[in-house]
Amino acid sequence: MKVIIIGGIAGGATTAAKLNRVNPQAQITMYEKEDYVSFGACGLPYFIGNQFHQPEGMINRTPEQFAKTGIQVKIRHEVIAIDSEAKTVRVRNLETNEVFVDHYDRLVLATGAKPIIPPFPGIELDHIFTFTKLNDGTAIKDQLETAQNITIVGGGFIGLELAEQLHELGKKVRVIELASHVMGKVFDPEISEKLAAELQTNGIDLHLEEAVTSFNGDGVVQEVVTNKATYATDLVILAIGFQPNVELVAGLGFAQFENGAIIVDNQGKTSIPDIYAVGDCATVENRILQEPMYLPLATTANKLGRIVGEVVGGLDSHFPGMLASSGIRCLGIEAGATGLNEQIARAKGLQYKVKTITDKDHAGYVKGAVELTIKLVYHAETKVILGGQIVGPKNAVLRVDVLAAAIYKGMTTDELGLLDLVYSPPFSRTWDILNVAGNVSK
Amino acid sequence: MKVIIIGGIAGGATTAAKLNRVNPQAQITMYEKEDYVSFGACGLPYFIGNQFHQPEGMINRTPEQFAKTGIQVKIRHEVIAIDSEAKTVRVRNLETNEVFVDHYDRLVLATGAKPIIPPFPGIELDHIFTFTKLNDGTAIKDQLETAQNITIVGGGFIGLELAEQLHELGKKVRVIELASHVMGKVFDPEISEKLAAELQTNGIDLHLEEAVTSFNGDGVVQEVVTNKATYATDLVILAIGFQPNVELVAGLGFAQFENGAIIVDNQGKTSIPDIYAVGDCATVENRILQEPMYLPLATTANKLGRIVGEVVGGLDSHFPGMLASSGIRCLGIEAGATGLNEQIARAKGLQYKVKTITDKDHAGYVKGAVELTIKLVYHAETKVILGGQIVGPKNAVLRVDVLAAAIYKGMTTDELGLLDLVYSPPFSRTWDILNVAGNVSK
Repeated sequence: MKVIIIGGIAGGATTAAKLNRVNPQAQITMYEKEDYVSFGACGLPYFIGNQFHQPEGMINRTPEQFAKTGIQVKIRHEVIAIDSEAKTVRVRNLETNEVFVDHYDRLVLATGAKPIIPPFPGIELDHIFTFTKLNDGTAIKDQLETAQNITIVGGGFIGLELAEQLHELGKKVRVIELASHVMGKVFDPEISEKLAAELQTNGIDLHLEEAVTSFNGDGVVQEVVTNKATYATDLVILAIGFQPNVELVAGLGFAQFENGAIIVDNQGKTSIPDIYAVGDCATVENRILQEPMYLPLATTANKLGRIVGEVVGGLDSHFPGMLASSGIRCLGIEAGATGLNEQIARAKGLQYKVKTITDKDHAGYVKGAVELTIKLVYHAETKVILGGQIVGPKNAVLRVDVLAAAIYKGMTTDELGLLDLVYSPPFSRTWDILNVAGNVSK
Repeated sequence: MKVIIIGGIAGGATTAAKLNRVNPQAQITMYEKEDYVSFGACGLPYFIGNQFHQPEGMINRTPEQFAKTGIQVKIRHEVIAIDSEAKTVRVRNLETNEVFVDHYDRLVLATGAKPIIPPFPGIELDHIFTFTKLNDGTAIKDQLETAQNITIVGGGFIGLELAEQLHELGKKVRVIELASHVMGKVFDPEISEKLAAELQTNGIDLHLEEAVTSFNGDGVVQEVVTNKATYATDLVILAIGFQPNVELVAGLGFAQFENGAIIVDNQGKTSIPDIYAVGDCATVENRILQEPMYLPLATTANKLGRIVGEVVGGLDSHFPGMLASSGIRCLGIEAGATGLNEQIARAKGLQYKVKTITDKDHAGYVKGAVELTIKLVYHAETKVILGGQIVGPKNAVLRVDVLAAAIYKGMTTDELGLLDLVYSPPFSRTWDILNVAGNVSK
């Protein structure tokens, strides 16, 4: 069996590795247009922040390491066309410009996503960066030797992680966000507010409900213009969001999501026979809603990639779906969410209730207790927990994982109220805040 | 309806408060032989360690506060006999020595437990303490103004929490434990070892497999004698364990556990009509084994107390059982456990497997990553997770809570492997150690 994998960054690399273990007879070729594979872009903000210095720290496996296990990796090779009838792909060697045809029995699309770059006037100026590739990281790091005044466009995960790291480097940081609250897809406003307050407390200039309209500069960017004002800047990083790389499948009849992502089932199968998709180019099942969602995270790519590797390798594995769990640390605060937030529950027309409480993370008589705020979203009749968000100075995100396990298995708020969580004064109160949240969510 | 509650420390106080909310018509009288109620003894080690200074910090509600909600609290009153036919109790007022009879429609036994005090020669010497009551705490604290050389007998929770706090006060601390590993009921040896190593690294003198045989001294204790040696000491704290206070029910026909604890069902009902029991004098259902266990923890008393309050108040509530979740911080290490450890799984003759792995708590490229060790116990055929233990310098205990939620709902190791836990580099690796543990537990 010949398997071609298009893209080797996260989902593709995981699929290849798992497939190779499950079915060592499979002939695997992975084409990647960059000059590296198996890259953990999540490390980029921390590379920028000098938490480590060798960009190789973000590479999990090299082409040579893959080759040793019998997986053929072709970097600097771009797949430019797919013929799903003939079961072939056309590939361009980006070094030589040579184009050739390769045949597959099974094809895995792992083409990833690209950063959204609105056509702002001045977008072509130097020192305006996006932030997904290894060379984005090294190029920005070079500029930071002189740039002091940094503008981040977008107040999502990446924008806030970057804001933290740049602030800790001593830079003057401005974050401009179009929406009314930061990380607005993940958190409801009352949780986001606490992140925003922490940014402002630390002197990060946060602009909400403000739209970038253009950039000015003479060769290099010098000003960011918004619908409200004009700001001097030395460097701009766009962190607005992602769109799936799906040009390759245009017109081929794939079922696609509202943003173009390739829709897959819980085995990673697309609507075209023998073609699978995984990672940021594809959807993944929302376990609660039991419908596809777009969740371009490394953990999504890795988890579904594992299943696709097994299925292509001949096993009958099924993906249990994702909960959209995610978290962030930003300066002195951390926050996480899992399942549905209220905005989504409302948009989906669910019969839900919510409850938000604030309590100490551990017994007040042991030094270091902090206040956490937790919001639960639960079904109005069955009381099954649909989602949870927690924010606080520490010990918030790992508690979100407790909710993730609970939601995965359909726990009710009553059950959460009596759940036997560890009680020990340095870690919790006799009734942990999770118990209390369950007990008051009637 | 007249309800008498015998004991007002943890289970009794919770039962009273909940019953009063559920059924404000119930006439509640709570008899307590100490001169306080609603006391959180878990704070005692931290009171000793000067993390707080007012012992009232461990009192959740005073008799006066209970009285305001209509609950009659009689402190310094000891119930000395129960007549379950006549539905009466005989009560001694410890202030006046007056004895009187009171009648109940429902009786709740919340008599607690007492520290085990073996009949060591010399046990009557001064400066040998047990450690459960408020005045134990204040008496020890007085002695610590001069005592430098402290011996703790028992390497369980309380022994280790005390060791930490006394060490941080600058005392010379010796811990003598009869068993071959510390906290041996909670942790399997490979987890305990890491706690022991941390004690030793910090200069705490840990003696395992060593039996205290007597104490020497002239009025006050001066030496601890064991089966191996004799040690000078200024002060001894016995933290050997607890036995239920059940003298009151002797000969009355209650079903009792191997250690005498009163066996209750999942509504807190004893084998005698209209009599309930809760807290350290009673058993609680082990959710996994579906049989009674003895788990004398504040969290047990609080959770079952809530149910008993509801049931006595007229609701048909059922307790879901406990998992024996517990945790400890000791100096630079923390550890927690939930469900069955291997020792219990083996003793119960279950078909189980175990897997122990070590991995980083979060992405290695973000500062502060530490190594965690996790041990899973799971059913050999169904792969349902039966128990988990985690140890490490930080971020271990809250992960045990994730396992608690998983075990509560019958999650398998495969499901844990793909559970959508929060991925964010300061908190986890792309595959969190919990995922990895699930994936390798085949």
